[in-house]
Amino acid sequence: MIAVDVMSGEKHPEVIIKGALRAAEEFNIKVGLVGDEELVHDYLKKSGYQYTGNVEVYHASEVIAMHEKPAIACKKKKDASVIVCARLVRDGIAQGFFSPGNTGATLVASFMNIERIEGVLRPSLAAVIPTVKGKSVLIDAGANMECVPEYLAQFAVMGEVFANKVQRKENPTIGLLSIGKERSKGNDLTLKTNEILKDLKMNFVGNIEGYDISDGDIDVVVCDGFVGNIVIKVTERIFRLTVEFVGQEVENHLLQRIGYALIYPAVRNMRKKTDPSEYGGGYLLGLNANIVIGHGASDSVTAYNGIHMVNVAIRNKLTTLIVSRLEELGLKK
Amino acid sequence: MIAVDVMSGEKHPEVIIKGALRAAEEFNIKVGLVGDEELVHDYLKKSGYQYTGNVEVYHASEVIAMHEKPAIACKKKKDASVIVCARLVRDGIAQGFFSPGNTGATLVASFMNIERIEGVLRPSLAAVIPTVKGKSVLIDAGANMECVPEYLAQFAVMGEVFANKVQRKENPTIGLLSIGKERSKGNDLTLKTNEILKDLKMNFVGNIEGYDISDGDIDVVVCDGFVGNIVIKVTERIFRLTVEFVGQEVENHLLQRIGYALIYPAVRNMRKKTDPSEYGGGYLLGLNANIVIGHGASDSVTAYNGIHMVNVAIRNKLTTLIVSRLEELGLKK
Repeated sequence: MIAVDVMSGEKHPEVIIKGALRAAEEFNIKVGLVGDEELVHDYLKKSGYQYTGNVEVYHASEVIAMHEKPAIACKKKKDASVIVCARLVRDGIAQGFFSPGNTGATLVASFMNIERIEGVLRPSLAAVIPTVKGKSVLIDAGANMECVPEYLAQFAVMGEVFANKVQRKENPTIGLLSIGKERSKGNDLTLKTNEILKDLKMNFVGNIEGYDISDGDIDVVVCDGFVGNIVIKVTERIFRLTVEFVGQEVENHLLQRIGYALIYPAVRNMRKKTDPSEYGGGYLLGLNANIVIGHGASDSVTAYNGIHMVNVAIRNKLTTLIVSRLEELGLKK
Repeated sequence: MIAVDVMSGEKHPEVIIKGALRAAEEFNIKVGLVGDEELVHDYLKKSGYQYTGNVEVYHASEVIAMHEKPAIACKKKKDASVIVCARLVRDGIAQGFFSPGNTGATLVASFMNIERIEGVLRPSLAAVIPTVKGKSVLIDAGANMECVPEYLAQFAVMGEVFANKVQRKENPTIGLLSIGKERSKGNDLTLKTNEILKDLKMNFVGNIEGYDISDGDIDVVVCDGFVGNIVIKVTERIFRLTVEFVGQEVENHLLQRIGYALIYPAVRNMRKKTDPSEYGGGYLLGLNANIVIGHGASDSVTAYNGIHMVNVAIRNKLTTLIVSRLEELGLKK
């Protein structure tokens, strides 16, 4: 079963439930809807849902909102939907969950309740990012602020397994995000991480620069969580802003305004391709669970995509593969 | 006098000389053209330049190329144009210089020859960045890989003086780049830096996120040089790529292709507004000199803009103001 936190998003729980029902039917999987029982049952009734045994409802009396401080909220709200999801995994009832909420709270709830994969030093957040050539993955996207080289080396391995099994990339290229291609460029952390990665039997291309991320030749971008979080937010905003820049420019020119109207479908497509809420969200790797954290603005498609990602990970035994790959490369700690 | 390294760019020295001559004439300043003497005189003759006493030529027999390793190149090529520029400043002949070359080599040449401003812990690279609302400054853009909170606090002050005097912003807003607005979010470095900055008598708005940089409400973005270098490169590339994304989308649709052709002037303007080679480059702050490092692809307009920036800094006594502002805030070390 995959647990689905229907309460924590910015939109109405109905949109998440809708995405979950679609996923349950299309993938023929069991989903556990976690949230206000009455609200969930009301929606199921209203929507004319026919009980087929693939949907369960688990009550959670509380919700952690987007703006709440993760550690404090998780301590206070013991019956929050995201914590109930984590507990369902802990108790072996669910093999993973999707939450469209507060990333920090999902991390804390997961760390508190679910064990790490044997040999993994730090769980990490993998984020799917848009590039010109399709989707890449960036790891760590914000779970670990302070890192040592051994963490980053493991992130590289977890990212490789993710790119290979979830994104179906053969022998994915791995790049270490730094300030120059030469091995001698970087900060202490990346210099030492490069030393580890360069000797591993993986497709490590060496250091990459900020320029390279969106070009799409690098399948797995490795960095610490502080840098990763900033890069993802910069990327997300600028993809939007460029269109705004052009919009500002055309405003005073009739012909250009007509032109802008003509290309609008292309702009909309581009926005869609670069919209983080389309991807289903960030993937929490390194715990004995399959957890996807959606964008706060997740709609039913995001939820559907997110649950799909959880399902793909479960079916491909991602957690087991991470252990064996770490072992193979001598990085199991 | 402002020294101009005419040799280190990717383009022909002529374009830099052209920009320098224009700056000398328009700002009525003295420029020292540093490079292959014969080549420079040849160009001056060819261009019909009339000697007015505001141009000197200084011979440099060597050049450090873009791909060379800074420390090694500066050791080996004692007579490289960028080193001659730094020596002209050291010897009091020039008050600053412009180089369109290898950023690392310019930093090393400057650090080796020019003294730090009294009380400054680390010189830092300030980069002018495009935003929706105009230009902001990001500091440090890549001079310091390993930082402590005291460095970042001084970067904030140097950035403030730069935004105020060079960019003419009244009481500029200062933001500390982190992973969340709350003071409790960040890594060790930013948490401790926030503690220092929050008590200073400056317009410190607190932590900012990757989202906020390009919105343009923050005049001075403070971060360590590793993060800054990555952010600048990500920004630069994505501004380009978005247009490419839309270009890809329109390719198969005749109407959209017409639309794209109609808005092309707007796209070109946007490109120009977000083109780093338009700005004149990065400003090296914290040394007893006024140094601008241009983009490798600098043309004569970039050189002209860069020399303009050096000139504005000299006329506004930027180095003196940095000392007094650090003193005022109790940050002079």
